[in-house]
Amino acid sequence: MSTVPKNGKRLYIQEVSVRDGFQMEPIFIPTDRKIEFINGLSRTGLAKIEVTSFTSPKAIPALADAEAVMCRIERVPGVEYAALVPNLRGCERALSCGVDEINLVMSASESHNMANLRMTPQQSLEQFAQIAAEVNGRVRLNASLSTTFGCPFDGEIPLSRVLEVVARFVDMGMDGVTLCDTTGMANPAQVARVCEAVRQRWPNMVFTAHFHNTRGMGLANVLAALQAGIDRFDASLGGLGGCPFAPGASGNVCTEDMVHMLEAMGYDTGADLEALLALARELPGIVQHEIPGQVVKAGPWTRRYPLPASRDRQGS
Amino acid sequence: MSTVPKNGKRLYIQEVSVRDGFQMEPIFIPTDRKIEFINGLSRTGLAKIEVTSFTSPKAIPALADAEAVMCRIERVPGVEYAALVPNLRGCERALSCGVDEINLVMSASESHNMANLRMTPQQSLEQFAQIAAEVNGRVRLNASLSTTFGCPFDGEIPLSRVLEVVARFVDMGMDGVTLCDTTGMANPAQVARVCEAVRQRWPNMVFTAHFHNTRGMGLANVLAALQAGIDRFDASLGGLGGCPFAPGASGNVCTEDMVHMLEAMGYDTGADLEALLALARELPGIVQHEIPGQVVKAGPWTRRYPLPASRDRQGS
Repeated sequence: MSTVPKNGKRLYIQEVSVRDGFQMEPIFIPTDRKIEFINGLSRTGLAKIEVTSFTSPKAIPALADAEAVMCRIERVPGVEYAALVPNLRGCERALSCGVDEINLVMSASESHNMANLRMTPQQSLEQFAQIAAEVNGRVRLNASLSTTFGCPFDGEIPLSRVLEVVARFVDMGMDGVTLCDTTGMANPAQVARVCEAVRQRWPNMVFTAHFHNTRGMGLANVLAALQAGIDRFDASLGGLGGCPFAPGASGNVCTEDMVHMLEAMGYDTGADLEALLALARELPGIVQHEIPGQVVKAGPWTRRYPLPASRDRQGS
Repeated sequence: MSTVPKNGKRLYIQEVSVRDGFQMEPIFIPTDRKIEFINGLSRTGLAKIEVTSFTSPKAIPALADAEAVMCRIERVPGVEYAALVPNLRGCERALSCGVDEINLVMSASESHNMANLRMTPQQSLEQFAQIAAEVNGRVRLNASLSTTFGCPFDGEIPLSRVLEVVARFVDMGMDGVTLCDTTGMANPAQVARVCEAVRQRWPNMVFTAHFHNTRGMGLANVLAALQAGIDRFDASLGGLGGCPFAPGASGNVCTEDMVHMLEAMGYDTGADLEALLALARELPGIVQHEIPGQVVKAGPWTRRYPLPASRDRQGS
């Protein structure tokens, strides 16, 4: 029903619900249910799916079935299947399952890196270099920089610090870099500054923006990153995920809400909104709680309503 | 704790929770509680408060106490006290209570105007002219154009239609014009087009943007309007309000979330975020349900957390 021209720039939507989302859930989602859900995601036009995390099952019991999930999902041509890898052991496990991409993670801030990974950022960088040597070009390597836009312990992160770490990623030969707003501290003015700075310095690097909607700014930050030339966005179906420090707050940017906005603006996301909405409607049954996504509740903007029975009512 | 320079452009925040929000609530909020809440709002640095609607008590029982509320609230210097007025009778009632501004409302689309006001847009325009003659400069007159960015019955609204109606408002001598995204259909690209067009044609008119967060795009649309030069924004504390066609969906853009974003970006909203948050925390008790606002749950981005006890956990 939309008359918006679909001649917009191509954008790439990267799904993280089954990793960043499911790892936050208190229940263990059965392996077959995860696989079924990921197989559904594979048919929605997403560019990439972060399938799981090859971490210690003790640390994240929700993702203890990483091998089974990664080895048994269908591989739909055109979709990249990535996994988060916290260390060399995880790297070996991921490679044994035939991932397309390994996503490494460290924080821009010292205290968040210590809390999250029990090592200093410098130790993380050394480990990244070891993993890069081990991988040796067999699969794509992406580096995710947590707390790029602020740290819940240390506060603001200087732009110079972000550029310093991204420069190390580039020097190591990373195929992509993800700028992560781990706890939803970013604002659009800051996003514009950071994204413009990295794009200007490394115009040929593949950058992804990864926002959380913790403080309601998720889609505004997507808009700011888009205006700064970013064309790849992580998001989570239903807005799953979250911030352990903000109970009740929204999680990652919601995939279907983001696709809905970008398509309404005339961009080509490659994604099928109706298919995403159908999967999002399954999520409350899978995770056993309500999800923050808005479009699944209100319907897309193209939805039309029958005229109501006449009554006096004023709104604006 | 913020080091964001507060040298940004001055923006004006206009509160609609006690009108656009309360009118949607199924319970009658006691008059004294409304007055106490509005008196609290008056001390948060808001530029304007839309206090009530002088409509038929039968049509909107929740606002049946319009005179009592408007006459008994404290008038804090520097705050404008506005009321929505649907017809000449409402205009007389509002004038008798000493409002600072009368807000008239009509829809860009025929069917929404018929459903909402039981008259054609042309009849609404004729009534606006009658009210303007009756008011004769005694108070400020603002015209709100509902469904500017789309109609839930008719669909897309051509920009030419918006410009045609705004031209009539300007010709009638309106002091301000509000562009309303009544059911949350606007997207940022469209907001940029519409706001740039009206600002270019009427550079001296006072325009307000009024967005709903029905489909999660509220703050992204605020950002787009801001970039197009809009400096006045309607919003609703806690994100109260809503769309009768989208049960469960969010309501108006949330005042404290919007102020939080704009202040983080370095703008001067004139508003006291902590005072707004304190009032937002009262809302669930007043309306007897949860509210959609995010910052009230997560805290502002400047919030710092103690370092957690060490454990293995990976996030991005």
